[in-house]
Amino acid sequence: MNIKLLVVGKTVKGFVSEATEEYTKRLKHYINFKIEVIQDVKNASSLSSSQLKEKESELILKHISEEDYIILLDEKGKEFSSKEFASFIQQKMNQSIKSLVFIVGGAFGFDEKIKQKYTNKISISRMTFSHQMIRVLFIEQLYRAFTILKNEPYHNE
Amino acid sequence: MNIKLLVVGKTVKGFVSEATEEYTKRLKHYINFKIEVIQDVKNASSLSSSQLKEKESELILKHISEEDYIILLDEKGKEFSSKEFASFIQQKMNQSIKSLVFIVGGAFGFDEKIKQKYTNKISISRMTFSHQMIRVLFIEQLYRAFTILKNEPYHNE
Repeated sequence: MNIKLLVVGKTVKGFVSEATEEYTKRLKHYINFKIEVIQDVKNASSLSSSQLKEKESELILKHISEEDYIILLDEKGKEFSSKEFASFIQQKMNQSIKSLVFIVGGAFGFDEKIKQKYTNKISISRMTFSHQMIRVLFIEQLYRAFTILKNEPYHNE
Repeated sequence: MNIKLLVVGKTVKGFVSEATEEYTKRLKHYINFKIEVIQDVKNASSLSSSQLKEKESELILKHISEEDYIILLDEKGKEFSSKEFASFIQQKMNQSIKSLVFIVGGAFGFDEKIKQKYTNKISISRMTFSHQMIRVLFIEQLYRAFTILKNEPYHNE
């Protein structure tokens, strides 16, 4: 199975970049994982938040293929414990899904078109984190999921 | 009101340090905030996880004073949305609490003595994050809480 994290907008420099690079490196021991970045919408600052969400949705749709099993990372999604999330990943592997794609929206989240089309939603926290920070949280949990599935100690540092 | 985040064990270098420093700096505009680090227990590797938790609890208790209003950050705690968490902080200010202390346990969490003594528990996520990562998540949420209370835009970068 391939796993992809599809995100809107460049990862900001500093700790978000560092953390995502660190966990991406670690994940390579377990799974074919990559982050795919949809470039920021041009002239975003001249658009309203709903216009921006619409533009971003069009871009997201262009980055998805028919074979992808899509899961949105959304505050309103289903909450999992880390063990339940690990079981979810295992289940998808057992179902012979080839491409599992998790999507983080832009700064204002997803527009309705995306939400209606893709109904699998996972919430990492009831709290709102920035779309940048969610990258770090997701990827840490994905790494943790594999350490759980492989019954390996989690390396904290 | 003073707010303190009491943590067990040095903050690891790299993105955890960077992120906590960054948000601590930002928080200074809003509140008297600090992180207090309880040094790692000596010879921790020779102890069982329950012995280590016990030692850490003794150290935690030494760092708490009678005036502190204590909240444990614990997976089993109450979940808040970011807005609810902001209201919670506002409420504590309204109650004229002088010192609000959030505590993150060590790598294995809190021992029973601490859990029984302090029953205010907040959970940032149903998922398990490392005690290092929780520092980043908490401090980002505390910063977000103040931007919500002050009705200021959240700065992502």
